[in-house]
Amino acid sequence: MPSNDMLEDILTEVSPLLGQGKVANYIPALAKVSANKLGIAVCTVDGELSYAGDALEPFSIQSISKVFSLTLAMNRVGDDLWTRVGKEPSGQSFNSLSQLEYEHGIPRNPFINAGALVVNDILQSRLSAPKQQSLALVRQLSGNKRIMADKWVARSEYEHPHTARNAAMAYLMKSFANFNNEVDQVLQSYYLQCAFMMSCVDLAKAFVYLANRGRPLFGDKPILSPKQTKRLNALLATSGLYDAAGDFAYRVGMPGKSGVGGGIIAIIPGELSVCVWSPALNEAGNSLVGTAMLETFTTKLGRSIF
Amino acid sequence: MPSNDMLEDILTEVSPLLGQGKVANYIPALAKVSANKLGIAVCTVDGELSYAGDALEPFSIQSISKVFSLTLAMNRVGDDLWTRVGKEPSGQSFNSLSQLEYEHGIPRNPFINAGALVVNDILQSRLSAPKQQSLALVRQLSGNKRIMADKWVARSEYEHPHTARNAAMAYLMKSFANFNNEVDQVLQSYYLQCAFMMSCVDLAKAFVYLANRGRPLFGDKPILSPKQTKRLNALLATSGLYDAAGDFAYRVGMPGKSGVGGGIIAIIPGELSVCVWSPALNEAGNSLVGTAMLETFTTKLGRSIF
Amino acid sequence: MPSNDMLEDILTEVSPLLGQGKVANYIPALAKVSANKLGIAVCTVDGELSYAGDALEPFSIQSISKVFSLTLAMNRVGDDLWTRVGKEPSGQSFNSLSQLEYEHGIPRNPFINAGALVVNDILQSRLSAPKQQSLALVRQLSGNKRIMADKWVARSEYEHPHTARNAAMAYLMKSFANFNNEVDQVLQSYYLQCAFMMSCVDLAKAFVYLANRGRPLFGDKPILSPKQTKRLNALLATSGLYDAAGDFAYRVGMPGKSGVGGGIIAIIPGELSVCVWSPALNEAGNSLVGTAMLETFTTKLGRSIF
Amino acid sequence: MPSNDMLEDILTEVSPLLGQGKVANYIPALAKVSANKLGIAVCTVDGELSYAGDALEPFSIQSISKVFSLTLAMNRVGDDLWTRVGKEPSGQSFNSLSQLEYEHGIPRNPFINAGALVVNDILQSRLSAPKQQSLALVRQLSGNKRIMADKWVARSEYEHPHTARNAAMAYLMKSFANFNNEVDQVLQSYYLQCAFMMSCVDLAKAFVYLANRGRPLFGDKPILSPKQTKRLNALLATSGLYDAAGDFAYRVGMPGKSGVGGGIIAIIPGELSVCVWSPALNEAGNSLVGTAMLETFTTKLGRSIF
Repeated sequence: MPSNDMLEDILTEVSPLLGQGKVANYIPALAKVSANKLGIAVCTVDGELSYAGDALEPFSIQSISKVFSLTLAMNRVGDDLWTRVGKEPSGQSFNSLSQLEYEHGIPRNPFINAGALVVNDILQSRLSAPKQQSLALVRQLSGNKRIMADKWVARSEYEHPHTARNAAMAYLMKSFANFNNEVDQVLQSYYLQCAFMMSCVDLAKAFVYLANRGRPLFGDKPILSPKQTKRLNALLATSGLYDAAGDFAYRVGMPGKSGVGGGIIAIIPGELSVCVWSPALNEAGNSLVGTAMLETFTTKLGRSIF
Repeated sequence: MPSNDMLEDILTEVSPLLGQGKVANYIPALAKVSANKLGIAVCTVDGELSYAGDALEPFSIQSISKVFSLTLAMNRVGDDLWTRVGKEPSGQSFNSLSQLEYEHGIPRNPFINAGALVVNDILQSRLSAPKQQSLALVRQLSGNKRIMADKWVARSEYEHPHTARNAAMAYLMKSFANFNNEVDQVLQSYYLQCAFMMSCVDLAKAFVYLANRGRPLFGDKPILSPKQTKRLNALLATSGLYDAAGDFAYRVGMPGKSGVGGGIIAIIPGELSVCVWSPALNEAGNSLVGTAMLETFTTKLGRSIF
Repeated sequence: MPSNDMLEDILTEVSPLLGQGKVANYIPALAKVSANKLGIAVCTVDGELSYAGDALEPFSIQSISKVFSLTLAMNRVGDDLWTRVGKEPSGQSFNSLSQLEYEHGIPRNPFINAGALVVNDILQSRLSAPKQQSLALVRQLSGNKRIMADKWVARSEYEHPHTARNAAMAYLMKSFANFNNEVDQVLQSYYLQCAFMMSCVDLAKAFVYLANRGRPLFGDKPILSPKQTKRLNALLATSGLYDAAGDFAYRVGMPGKSGVGGGIIAIIPGELSVCVWSPALNEAGNSLVGTAMLETFTTKLGRSIF
Repeated sequence: MPSNDMLEDILTEVSPLLGQGKVANYIPALAKVSANKLGIAVCTVDGELSYAGDALEPFSIQSISKVFSLTLAMNRVGDDLWTRVGKEPSGQSFNSLSQLEYEHGIPRNPFINAGALVVNDILQSRLSAPKQQSLALVRQLSGNKRIMADKWVARSEYEHPHTARNAAMAYLMKSFANFNNEVDQVLQSYYLQCAFMMSCVDLAKAFVYLANRGRPLFGDKPILSPKQTKRLNALLATSGLYDAAGDFAYRVGMPGKSGVGGGIIAIIPGELSVCVWSPALNEAGNSLVGTAMLETFTTKLGRSIF
C-alpha cells in the first residue's frame, strides 16, 4: 500500500513540470481551471485510501466517463456488444471519420468518440433512464451521493462545433445501420456523463472494481464478472489513451483511461486503482504531469503489469 | 444540326445494349421505371429541336439538378462561391467522407454530394424561397410550366439510409464552419430538386444556355456571363460524371452531367445541348446506354471538344 | 492565327507577375535557371509559327515528356494499355502511394508519376532501344535534330531522394504484378526523357499532331489515329495538370500538360498547339506566369474548348 | 509452475479446433507443413521446463524473429531507436504503405513490416556481421547451438512478390531519410532471421529474459535492463499481434508475438514464458489453435496480466 508520504513525494518530484502542456481551452468551463491543480489518490482492493494534493477537489471527468458507460453496457448487453464496436487500437485520431467510413460504421474500440457514441446509443435503447442511471452508477461506485454533472460544461460542449463532428459520426454510423436512436438525444446524454464532476478520491474509489475482479468498493454485488473485468482492463491497456496507448504502456505499464479535463485513472489488477489530476495536456491530449505522476508511481512502487 | 433520322439511327444502334446495366433500385420510385426506356433530344443554340424515342416522357433528373443549383449560386454569389467548394475532380466515390475530412470540410467540387449540399446551403442563405425559385428556374429555362417535383421520390430519398450519410457530410462541414443552415432543411430542399420530373426535350432546351454563352432559350437575360458559362462547362468536363469523368471525356468528349435516374446532359459549346435517357446504369453509376448514345452521337456528328 | 504582336502583348501583360512563384530548386540544374525567362510559341495545324520572348531557348521539359512516352505507348500497344493504367483524375498528390495501394497497383492516369512509370515499363518491354527511340521521336516531331537530354539533370534527378519514392511506387506496382522490368533501368530511362532540352518553338511544333488528328508537322505518317488523338486530348483536359486540372480547365479551357521546368503545352483541337515557359511555379507545381499567359491567350483569342 | 499434465490437457481441449484456419501457403516451404502439428512449452524464470505435443520439432519462427532483432537494437542503440520507429499500435494492415506515407516514413511500431525493416537497417549499420550475430543471439538465448536458418524458406520469401512490397516500404522510408543501407541487403538479412528454425522448447527458453527483467536463461549478463524489458513487454502487449492485439489482450491477456509459421510466444512477467505452435492461421494471420491454447492456458492458470 502506497503511503500518503510516497504520494506527497511524487507530487514534489513532478512539480517542476508544472507550466508545461496546455489546459484544454475549447470551452470556457474547462479553460478557467487552474493549470496548477495537482492531485493523486490511490485505493486498494481492501479499501485503504491514500491521497495527496488537490485530491478532494472535483473536476470534469470527461472521457473517463467512457469506462463507466462501457461497464454499464457490458453489464447489460454482454458479448453482443462486440458486434457493434471493435476491440482494436485505432491508430488514428480519436475522432477520425475516415477510419469509420473505411470500416463500415463499426468503431475500432469503445474509447474513441464514435465507439463511445455507439455505447451510449446502446444504453439509450436498453436503459429506461440512461442519464439518471449513469449518475446513480458513479455515485454508487464512489460512495459519494453528491456527485453531479456540471450542466454548464455539458451545454458548452453541446454548443461547440465539435458537436457537429460527433453528429457527423453518429449519422455515418446510422447510414451503416449501427446507430438506432435520435442523434441529438444520445449526444446530450453523452455530454452529460462527460460533465460529471468527481475528485481523484471519488475516482480512485469508483474504479476499485477493475482491480478487484469486478467487485466494487461499496455494495455486495459484482458489477462485472472476473472475465469481463480482465477484458475491460485489456481494452484499457491497448486503447485507453487515445493515440498514445503504446507510449503510455511503454512508460507507465498500467491499463488506464484519460480525460481532457486532466484526469487519468489506472489500475494494477489485484491490487489497487489510482487517479491523478493535472489539467495541462500533452500533444496527445493526455495530462502531461498526470502521465509523469503515474510513471513515477509505478517506478517507486516497483510495479507494473509488465 | 442533327436530324431526327440521325437520332433514330442512334437509338437503333445502341438498342442491342438494352438489358445490360442495372436500374437504380434503392428506392421503389426509381426501381419501378422500365429499363427499356430510351430517349434522346438535341436543341441547338438557334432553338432547333430534334428528338427520338421516349424523349417526351418525364423522368427523375436527380443529380442533373446540381447543375441548375450551381447555376443559381454562381448567378447570385459570384466568385466567392469558390471559397466554399473546390473545382477539382475528386478521384473518389461521390460521397466520400474521408476526403472531406482530409480537406477540412471543403468539398472537391460542386457535383459530388458534399459539394451540392454546400451549394444548397448557400442558396438557403441567399434566396428567399429556395425550393420555389429552383422550380421557377427550371420551368423558365425549359419553357415548360408544368414541370413538378415528384414528392414521392423526394420523400423516399429522404427516408433512405443514404440520407444519414448526407447528413453526416453536412455535419462534418458544419464542424469546419462550412455549413450554416439547418441540416434537415437543406437536405429536404436538395431532395426536392433531385426529384424534378423532366423529359429529354425539357432538359435539352433547358441547357441551351451552356452552349450559348449563358443565354437561355427563353427570355432575354443571360443567366450567366460568357466567362462563367465557359467555366461551368470546364467543371462539367472534369467533374461531371462522378468518378468516370476521365472515361467519359475519353469516350464522349463533351462536358456533361449524369443523374441516377438514367439521364445525361451534354454540351457542344457554341452549338447545341443534348439529353439522353436510359435508366439502366453502369458500374460508375452513369446511364450505360446513355453513355453509348452520346459516344455514337459525337462519332456520327464528327464532333467533340477534343 | 495569333500574330507575333499578340504574343508580345501577352508577355507585356503578364510581366508584372514575374517575381511571384518559386523556381523548382530540388536539384541545382533546375534551380540555376533564371526566374525571369519568359517565352511563348504557337504553331497552327498549317505549320504557321509565331513566337515571342525566350521562345527559342531550350529548357528542361520534365513531365511534358510524359505526353511523348504515352503517345509512343498508345502507338505500339493500343487499347491494351488501359488495363495497366487508368483514365481518371487522381484527386491526390502526383506521387501518392496511398491511392496506388488502395487501387491495387493500377495508377489513376498516365500523368501521375506511377502512371508514367508504368508507361515507361511498357516501352521498356516493347521497344528495342527505348531511350534512343524516345529521343528520335521528339526530334522527328519537332523537326529539330539537335535536341538532346541534359545528362546532368538526369543524373541529379536520379540521385535525389525522390528517386527512392519513385522506386517505392515501382516496387509497389511490381508487388501487384503491374511492373515487369528492372526498376532501376526504367527509372533511368524515365529521367532521361524528363531531361530533354527543348524550346517553346520545338514543343509548339512537336505537339501539332494533337491539334491535327494525329498528323505531325513533319513526315507523312500519322502518329496516332484521329480517335486516339481526341482521347489523348481528353486525358490531358482531365488529368494533365497534376491536382490542378480543374482549375486549369476553369481558367484556361484547353487540354494541356505542365512540367516542373516551367513549361506548359496546350492544344486547341483542329487549330493550333501552344507552348509557354516561365520557370517559377505556383503551389500546385505548375508555371505561375505560364498559366496566366495561357489564360490571357485564350481570352485574347476568344477561344477555348468550352 | 504448470505441469506437463496440464499442458497435455490443454492440447486435448483444443484438439477439436484442428481443421479450422489455414496454413500459410504463399511459399511451398510453409505450405508443406502439416496442419495437425500441435505443441506447447513453458519455461519459468527458474529454468523449469514443461512441454507437450510437438514441442521439440523446429518450425519457421517468421515474425517472432522481430522480437530478437528489436532486442538486439535496443541493446545496442538505446532510446535513440525511438526517433526512427514509433511505439503505437498501427490500427492497419501489417504492411500498409498508406500509413507509412501519411506518417512521413516513420513506422508505427517495430512489429509491423516497415518497423522491422527499420530495425534491421539499424542492425546493418551497427553490427559488423548482422546475420551471424542474430543467429548467435538466438543460439545463446535458447542454449541450442544447432539452430539454423532454413535457406530454402529465406530464398522463397525473397523471390515472392511480397518482397516487392517490402522493397516499396524500404524505398519509401529511404525517401524520408529513414533507411540508410542497401534495400536488397537488408531484405536478405531480414528474411534469413525469419527463416530461423526453432522448436517450442527453444523459444520458451529463449524468451525467459522477457519474464526475468532482461536476464536470459543462459549466461550471466542481462541482455536488456529491467526498464527496457518492461517496455518491450508493453510494446508486445499493444502491438505484438498485427491488427489483433486488442482481441489477443482481451482473450489471452499476455504480451505476445506471433509468426506466420504458426508459432506464438507469450510472457507472464516475473514468472514464465510460453510458446505454442499450430500452423493453421485465423483471419488476422495468427495461429488459430495457438491462440486458443494460450487462452486456455491463462484460464487454467488463473493468471493474466490484467
